Amino acid sequence: MTTTALGEQDAALVKGVLAHERRALAKTITLLESTRADHRERGRQVLEALLPHSGKSIRIGISGVPGVGKSTFIEALGMLLIGRGHRVAVLAIDPSSSISGGSILGDKTRMEQLSMRDEAFIRPSPSAGSLGGVADKTREAMLACEAAGFDIVIVETVGVGQSETEVAGMTDVFVLLQLPNAGDDLQAIKKGIVELADVVVFNKADIDLRATEMAVAQMQSALALLHPATQHWKVPVLKISATRGDGIDLFWQTIDGYRQSMESHGAIAARRRQQALAWMWHLIESGLHQRFNDNPGVKHALPALAQAVQAGTITPSAAARQLLNY
Amino acid sequence: MTTTALGEQDAALVKGVLAHERRALAKTITLLESTRADHRERGRQVLEALLPHSGKSIRIGISGVPGVGKSTFIEALGMLLIGRGHRVAVLAIDPSSSISGGSILGDKTRMEQLSMRDEAFIRPSPSAGSLGGVADKTREAMLACEAAGFDIVIVETVGVGQSETEVAGMTDVFVLLQLPNAGDDLQAIKKGIVELADVVVFNKADIDLRATEMAVAQMQSALALLHPATQHWKVPVLKISATRGDGIDLFWQTIDGYRQSMESHGAIAARRRQQALAWMWHLIESGLHQRFNDNPGVKHALPALAQAVQAGTITPSAAARQLLNY
Repeated sequence: MTTTALGEQDAALVKGVLAHERRALAKTITLLESTRADHRERGRQVLEALLPHSGKSIRIGISGVPGVGKSTFIEALGMLLIGRGHRVAVLAIDPSSSISGGSILGDKTRMEQLSMRDEAFIRPSPSAGSLGGVADKTREAMLACEAAGFDIVIVETVGVGQSETEVAGMTDVFVLLQLPNAGDDLQAIKKGIVELADVVVFNKADIDLRATEMAVAQMQSALALLHPATQHWKVPVLKISATRGDGIDLFWQTIDGYRQSMESHGAIAARRRQQALAWMWHLIESGLHQRFNDNPGVKHALPALAQAVQAGTITPSAAARQLLNY
Repeated sequence: MTTTALGEQDAALVKGVLAHERRALAKTITLLESTRADHRERGRQVLEALLPHSGKSIRIGISGVPGVGKSTFIEALGMLLIGRGHRVAVLAIDPSSSISGGSILGDKTRMEQLSMRDEAFIRPSPSAGSLGGVADKTREAMLACEAAGFDIVIVETVGVGQSETEVAGMTDVFVLLQLPNAGDDLQAIKKGIVELADVVVFNKADIDLRATEMAVAQMQSALALLHPATQHWKVPVLKISATRGDGIDLFWQTIDGYRQSMESHGAIAARRRQQALAWMWHLIESGLHQRFNDNPGVKHALPALAQAVQAGTITPSAAARQLLNY
């Protein structure tokens, strides 16, 4: 697929993105997010044209519960990186956005300084559809940002349901932002989020240094018992204060160290290959479900069969077999 | 579906099971476990005939890592229950059985006393197929045991992968058997198994009483932070010594108390309805996967597309779309 197959309008979009034009990038992402059938086909073609120019950023996933200070942290990090000549894109996956209209990044003023800079591009969570759909669109937006010359892409998510797994599944390094209190730790361990983390960061360390030291020690002993998310990488536990800007520099050194260590044995490329394949299977699964649920025979027979299964008058196996035959 | 539609041989099986004949029950389960197409159809018919006579037991799931003392515990519990006039069936789900030939219940001599009693029926894990397949067959065997008059069905599993979820999804009460050491706790919390538990039992409490007290306290504080597996039920944490028989009686009082409390507001029936429906969906999902993987077009195109996705020359979305069109 080359750009010659594109319509005039879409060829201009592709050209604009490759020329690092922010407006073209924003319009491209809007096209990719659209649910209209003709838009989806156009979006697919635009994305195929951008694909050879993508992949050249470091992709950083950042997760944390509401109130942990994600926006402040990302703003501080973004400003530091821009100061060093980087171009930074910030995307979000908010599984609640379809219901609430979005609880994160819905308001760009939450990153006041960063949102005013030309070297930054901030995009709120797509609001339509299921988590899988939201994550799919963010994944595509990430590729478009890379084609537009952003060499650092940050994907932010709030700690709800499966969204951390989705973000860890599309980034090179996954950062868990925590508050220094034990309940937060246990929740994260329990939900398997700590297992996904390549770096754990305790924010608001300035408020109670002693509590932070304890939380760090507890997290380290928990991590010692878990499988590392990434082979050949010992998960560091950092302390920062995003509001005061403390520890942001060390954080970036850690990410850069991770990148160098991983790239030295091809681990980032391998991770991306594995992620892309896993994503394909994820989409196939969604597609199979949708097709099943849209089948008229299934739609018609399902209510009565589901009732019979619940009443115990037919086994789940027999009902499943019947439904699969439509 | 009535028994009149069955062949002579199968009608005799059904009659035998309903007459509480152990040999007929064993042959029925073997038929249900068979992967031969004709056996599967016969098994389906036999099961439909038994279905109206099933459901009258209390279904107890017991999970724990190897070495926790599951067999000793189940034997002690089984002997106590038989002494009180119950009939006890013990089934197993061992996800490793298809590879290793089975690490649990493969050898009935592990429950020496129980296996010699007429009031007990012990059946090792089915060995064929995926975990889903193994669990499906165990679920059907459970229904057959109930039709054969066993009023207590114990489903045992070893703590590997998803098998706890499968067992919790087919039983009325899910028991987590633990050793009194913190590493074991953390593993169980991390893997989300504690969240499934209705009762937590520390075995080998006689070896180090102090360590056990500590483990109990830790588990109680962890449970306080988690959602209870079952509404209106506070998960008790018990101490036992299965080898010495200590605490088995109290354990049974706890299970009986659970049953009475749950039955008083219809919660067991509601749980079974919900489980049956979830199981149907699980089987539908497996069926959709299998059909996709068996599709000749998919089989042919998949290797090249998977390679292109990994190489980044096609997006996961485009590859998924193409494969779903076969």
